[in-house]
Amino acid sequence: MKKVNVFAPASIANLGCGFDIMGLALDEVGDVLEMSVRDGDGLTIVNRSGVPLPEDPEQNVITPVIRKFMELTGNRAQVDVVIREKIFPGSGIGSSSASSAAAAFGINELFGAPLSEEEVVLCAMEGENLASGGYHADNAAPAVMGGIVLIRGYEPLDLIKLPVPGDFYCAVLHPHLVVSTKEARSILPPKVDMHAAVAQWGNVGGLVAGLYSGNIGLVGRSMRDAIAEPYRKGFIPGFDELREKVLQSGSLAMNIAGSGPSVFALADRREKARKAGEIFEQHFAARGIDYHSYVVKVSNRGARLIAY
Amino acid sequence: MKKVNVFAPASIANLGCGFDIMGLALDEVGDVLEMSVRDGDGLTIVNRSGVPLPEDPEQNVITPVIRKFMELTGNRAQVDVVIREKIFPGSGIGSSSASSAAAAFGINELFGAPLSEEEVVLCAMEGENLASGGYHADNAAPAVMGGIVLIRGYEPLDLIKLPVPGDFYCAVLHPHLVVSTKEARSILPPKVDMHAAVAQWGNVGGLVAGLYSGNIGLVGRSMRDAIAEPYRKGFIPGFDELREKVLQSGSLAMNIAGSGPSVFALADRREKARKAGEIFEQHFAARGIDYHSYVVKVSNRGARLIAY
Repeated sequence: MKKVNVFAPASIANLGCGFDIMGLALDEVGDVLEMSVRDGDGLTIVNRSGVPLPEDPEQNVITPVIRKFMELTGNRAQVDVVIREKIFPGSGIGSSSASSAAAAFGINELFGAPLSEEEVVLCAMEGENLASGGYHADNAAPAVMGGIVLIRGYEPLDLIKLPVPGDFYCAVLHPHLVVSTKEARSILPPKVDMHAAVAQWGNVGGLVAGLYSGNIGLVGRSMRDAIAEPYRKGFIPGFDELREKVLQSGSLAMNIAGSGPSVFALADRREKARKAGEIFEQHFAARGIDYHSYVVKVSNRGARLIAY
Repeated sequence: MKKVNVFAPASIANLGCGFDIMGLALDEVGDVLEMSVRDGDGLTIVNRSGVPLPEDPEQNVITPVIRKFMELTGNRAQVDVVIREKIFPGSGIGSSSASSAAAAFGINELFGAPLSEEEVVLCAMEGENLASGGYHADNAAPAVMGGIVLIRGYEPLDLIKLPVPGDFYCAVLHPHLVVSTKEARSILPPKVDMHAAVAQWGNVGGLVAGLYSGNIGLVGRSMRDAIAEPYRKGFIPGFDELREKVLQSGSLAMNIAGSGPSVFALADRREKARKAGEIFEQHFAARGIDYHSYVVKVSNRGARLIAY
């Protein structure tokens, strides 16, 4: 029997303008799995995280991830997974991706790492498909690879790890409003206005240029979403007012994390991110909404083995 | 009286994926204006280029450019312009922008350069508006600034000069089929499919990342257009077949230049660009279509004073 403990970080998809093609890993928050393999053929998943999850393994994102790994590598084993720590589902900070990425990374390590990093992401995307009905990599890729990842294209998967500026802090608040990814996707129209689309790809170009050139002002002003935000901000009470306050306090950008309802602010100093976090907390507390909130430095670390 | 000779380069807008937000200057081809100012208040434009242009100065892009400069700076003068060299209108390689950029740059020099580079682009955009009914900067900005320019946003104008890899060659062929920019714009739908839009902004991110990291393979595979090309390629006989041949010969990408009908290929060696140019010529010659063709190195030089 071989055994590992694996951590995979929470992540923020979209980053304002990069709907479905960009995401960032939040190194200090994530899922922890204890995984072991032995002779046999099967999978058990035990949830010890304290966070309610479906009992049926077919409803757990870990199952299709392990299945994909076995299919790609031609292996067979009895796999036992204990979920030790779990981000709350529906948080918008890549809860399903953190489990999927940890499972994909862990099973690959248990078999001596036969798959490339990109193939590990492909396995993790099977979990995303179960959770949201689509093969998205904007949380899964940063959860595996760390840092900020651009998904240049999906057919074939083309992942570009972008440089992370030295000082890059995020305040994230997860209000305890459950919005499923499926619901958040279904309110988006199948077609988008050409003018908004042009604005969006100008901003994507600006965001990538800002990351490469270390121009954090350019990063901030590029993180605007003309496509999904106008629809999704309706899930978050007082969104526009909240953003105005956060930007006035010195943050460079504020957006919905992935499909929401979490929100995040980007700042170039930890104090400014803390200030944004306080404004977030006051905003939701005043509306009687429970929350979890974090202030984290963006780092280049993704899924990895840990002592536990 | 003060007098200058000004050159502004031809340019390729869109670069595959960057519809309305990106363009590149072709340093070795462009317009030449002889410009002078003296006391008075008026504008004369004399066309000595041999290329047919409208006689009415109100129909010449130079007029609104000069007017905008005077408005922004509060100056007044008698301005006399002689058009010495002119890219053929309707070529798709920024004919109107080359005149507009040369006029904007030249008038600014004649008055001691009171305007910033960005303001010079704003003046040049008045010419684009006359030519195509819209304030686009994807040809005007590279024609003024040189190199490859990203227009992050239009309100306010936010121009980012992107790094140009050392070896970056373009073959350009202008088939003598007249397609006006207005006509090429009007066939585009007002709304675009979300899936195509996501592919487009993934490619914009990849193109910018490829330019910063000097990864010319990434640049090439990012230069795909899911938005305008499906409509505009109908103006160019045998487009798909031509691209297949050009890519097989070693070029990294082939696209429509701006709104067409010119086509261009990108290559990392001059010999490969020359080969693409030969394939272009054979293709159009076989169809009985006249053309001009060029093979040029992409450079960082934009509008400038020259000896003439």
